[in-house]
Amino acid sequence: MSFDRLLERIVETQNPTVAGLDPKLEYIPAYLREEQFRLHGRNLKGASQAILAYNKALIDALCDVVPAVKPQCAYYEMFGYEGMKTLHDTIQYAKSKGMYVITDGKRNDIGTTMEAYAVAHLGATLVDSEEFEAFGGDSLTVNGYLGTDGVAPLVKLCNERDKGIFVLCKTSNKSSGELQDRQIGDMPVYRVMGEMCEHWGADAMGRYGYSAVGAVVGATYPEQLEELRRAMPHTFFLVPGYGAQGGGAWDVLGAFDERGLGAIVNSSRGILCAWQKEGCAEQEFAAAARREALRMKEDITQHLPAITLP
Amino acid sequence: MSFDRLLERIVETQNPTVAGLDPKLEYIPAYLREEQFRLHGRNLKGASQAILAYNKALIDALCDVVPAVKPQCAYYEMFGYEGMKTLHDTIQYAKSKGMYVITDGKRNDIGTTMEAYAVAHLGATLVDSEEFEAFGGDSLTVNGYLGTDGVAPLVKLCNERDKGIFVLCKTSNKSSGELQDRQIGDMPVYRVMGEMCEHWGADAMGRYGYSAVGAVVGATYPEQLEELRRAMPHTFFLVPGYGAQGGGAWDVLGAFDERGLGAIVNSSRGILCAWQKEGCAEQEFAAAARREALRMKEDITQHLPAITLP
Repeated sequence: MSFDRLLERIVETQNPTVAGLDPKLEYIPAYLREEQFRLHGRNLKGASQAILAYNKALIDALCDVVPAVKPQCAYYEMFGYEGMKTLHDTIQYAKSKGMYVITDGKRNDIGTTMEAYAVAHLGATLVDSEEFEAFGGDSLTVNGYLGTDGVAPLVKLCNERDKGIFVLCKTSNKSSGELQDRQIGDMPVYRVMGEMCEHWGADAMGRYGYSAVGAVVGATYPEQLEELRRAMPHTFFLVPGYGAQGGGAWDVLGAFDERGLGAIVNSSRGILCAWQKEGCAEQEFAAAARREALRMKEDITQHLPAITLP
Repeated sequence: MSFDRLLERIVETQNPTVAGLDPKLEYIPAYLREEQFRLHGRNLKGASQAILAYNKALIDALCDVVPAVKPQCAYYEMFGYEGMKTLHDTIQYAKSKGMYVITDGKRNDIGTTMEAYAVAHLGATLVDSEEFEAFGGDSLTVNGYLGTDGVAPLVKLCNERDKGIFVLCKTSNKSSGELQDRQIGDMPVYRVMGEMCEHWGADAMGRYGYSAVGAVVGATYPEQLEELRRAMPHTFFLVPGYGAQGGGAWDVLGAFDERGLGAIVNSSRGILCAWQKEGCAEQEFAAAARREALRMKEDITQHLPAITLP
């Protein structure tokens, strides 16, 4: 249960990174876009199908070296239900290739409404007596501002179905401190949220010392990352902000434990736009993504011990 | 701009309430469900089409007496992309009937990702040079935990396209205090969030004294509701928690200003399940919803002055 499957994949690939699938239309090579526009029209459906073709090629190129993908819901939602179909198809395709899927939705609500989100992204929807997977991710990012009522329905489902969640703790953006760094008694808001994560996770511990309740902690705040690693020994970290947002390999080291476990570092634009940055032929976009993924793996793991399970 | 259109609709109908469209399958009369299952199958599509038929009948019954609807994304997402198509079609149908649409998504992210959510729910998506509305709501609920980076892209779009947002401030659930009531200096977290709302809204003021940045403040905390009304004079409130969650007419009075403006009170289950509570024939579900909506209007407005614009 919990993040055990992800940890096992990380050890298998010796790679604690995740490829963010945030596919803007302008990242997609023109030939691939035009092909789908010809088939489906120059509209939301054509765009969504172009994104799916792009994602599948990336997944094919990455699946044996990167343990996980993280599709960002916003980039699918902006193409309406056609985009949501591409989100579904992308998740299913990544899983069929053995990848672990982190659905980045930052969902939040309470009670039965949060149960509906849990079912949508981590569970299965009951229609009469038959179950259907609406999206089918392995884990989901979550905003904890509403407290336990917003998280308990997810933890229940994580235990039942071997899933995980990542709660926003200290985010990678510039203005994250406006609320998250404000002091509550003797600790900042992000530490209070961190304590809540440890508390929520206590009922959903995995075999390797990490619970099903992870946390999002940005690479752009290395000191807070180290501080939270010490304060949250049972909480697995999803670390955004490496690469395009400014975080480097040294900045993320504090996220890991002494076995090289404890965190997975995300790169989205770095991998998706590698072909544009390299200036290679657009047909090579997937190969360029793989090259960048391998470079990132090397960049981060050179400072880590060989990653092992306890 | 901002919430002006909503305020005008509230004055027209003399009704400061919104019908929450949180359509669980079990709320839908069996004859209506079975009809759609026969047409589309006993699956996510059949269920989504049943929800659409149910929503349309409710909108027909409510559109001349209730100014707005609030579809809750989670209950559509749980049916996958077929459910998201129903969300889209519901929003478009409500707008075609003159209703104002509050999309309850509690979305949150930063920078270009938040722009993608803004485009998805309040703007239009560009495919080549043509614009398409992905969902097309009039306003969106938002979680402000990430600070200005998560709100600025929305405020920009609110100004450009006459839209609004509601930022979670003090939510109606039991555990909302775990974070929201914690003290930062001399004020609780929900007041800090309230100050941020007033600040964000300053650049998006409407004609009637309320900005495009509203706040979600629960009916279940009447004291905080009054406190926040005083502290946030330019912030329009969306008030959940009336009815099924325990808030009554007296509890929400503090949300209004001296003109009877300043807030819109939501009821979801109370209206959706009125036919079950009344025990009337299932074919009467829409008429029962209308009766409950009129009862709620009377319940709340009996204590208010006639609602007028400044």
